[in-house]
Amino acid sequence: MNPQALVFDAYGTLYDVHAVIRRCDEFWPGKGAAISQLWRQKQLEYTWQRSLMRRYVPFSQITREALAYACEALKLALDDARTQALMQEYLKLAAYPDVPGALPRFGERQLAILTNGSPDMIEPLVKHSGLKFDAVLSVDAVKMFKPVPDVYQLAVDRLGVAKDAIGFVSSNCWDALGAKSFGFRVYWINRTGAPVDRLGFQPDGLLGSLGDLPEVLR
Amino acid sequence: MNPQALVFDAYGTLYDVHAVIRRCDEFWPGKGAAISQLWRQKQLEYTWQRSLMRRYVPFSQITREALAYACEALKLALDDARTQALMQEYLKLAAYPDVPGALPRFGERQLAILTNGSPDMIEPLVKHSGLKFDAVLSVDAVKMFKPVPDVYQLAVDRLGVAKDAIGFVSSNCWDALGAKSFGFRVYWINRTGAPVDRLGFQPDGLLGSLGDLPEVLR
Repeated sequence: MNPQALVFDAYGTLYDVHAVIRRCDEFWPGKGAAISQLWRQKQLEYTWQRSLMRRYVPFSQITREALAYACEALKLALDDARTQALMQEYLKLAAYPDVPGALPRFGERQLAILTNGSPDMIEPLVKHSGLKFDAVLSVDAVKMFKPVPDVYQLAVDRLGVAKDAIGFVSSNCWDALGAKSFGFRVYWINRTGAPVDRLGFQPDGLLGSLGDLPEVLR
Repeated sequence: MNPQALVFDAYGTLYDVHAVIRRCDEFWPGKGAAISQLWRQKQLEYTWQRSLMRRYVPFSQITREALAYACEALKLALDDARTQALMQEYLKLAAYPDVPGALPRFGERQLAILTNGSPDMIEPLVKHSGLKFDAVLSVDAVKMFKPVPDVYQLAVDRLGVAKDAIGFVSSNCWDALGAKSFGFRVYWINRTGAPVDRLGFQPDGLLGSLGDLPEVLR
């Protein structure tokens, strides 16, 4: 079925979390890429672990805590001013270059974001980017992170569209497969040529760029 | 309260998962450490992601699938024979050097393992190692992985000891903190000098070696 609504992951799919590297490099010369990688890894791990522990906190807190871990692990000094500055970077992450041109090409479909990001992070980010969506949905409404099925159900409930009529778009393979397990039609945007995660599902579509998706959905 | 029973994590705490490096290096010279690291990382991620997706499969399947991912990501050829050989290595992982001497020094306490490992993996491993436990408990009984509270509850139910009288021992910080969140008294064996994970809890004890724990519990 050709999807009536498209639901996009935000971090890593529309917005480049590694856009923080430059600012990290200013603070810790030559360490930007290592910080960014470990920061992102821990950020994701904490979402999974806290969901399983049933100890949800907003993504903004998780992001700050993951940064603190990453700097301690890499033995880099982090103070409140640097934390603040880097958290500010998260509110103006660059969109991937293939994103702004693709969005207007999806026709009359509803376009929504479904994100781990808490409202205090995602709303300023979307506004800053200038990208337009019909809805911006945060897991904060269900107090659990992806890939819990309740998170994907949120899009069904809020958009009023059956799950098999929703196309879900993510560059995070585990998120794409979590959405597939839930019952969405799923498009994995694999910009880096990563292997498919072994989680018992396959994406319906595998694309190298978001720019290829409008054509697929014609 | 001085614990009446001690419950140990297995992989990474009693048994060294990176003991597979040597065999990996035989198959893919110079790549053993990289394979082992990514294999372990993906193995853990799949336990978290599948628990959240509510798509449990036994740890043996997860371990095989994580190996397949790691080899594809590193562009290394993996066939059935190598998969079999490496899965066999998991049945005879070396115990850490501080483990065999420490276990007899815990006195009359019940000693148990609580592991993500499925019975087909953990039972041959414990037998091969010669280490003795009163109980070997697998998450397979509850079909969810750590750090879900139901997993830690399994130890309470099976050992017949109240949770505040159980000392839980893990080298995996997130596992230690998941157990702390559940209500155990927790000892984190930090052999590598890693930072404490930011998950809202602190271990009750932080030790560099399992050999230091008997003295702490006097």
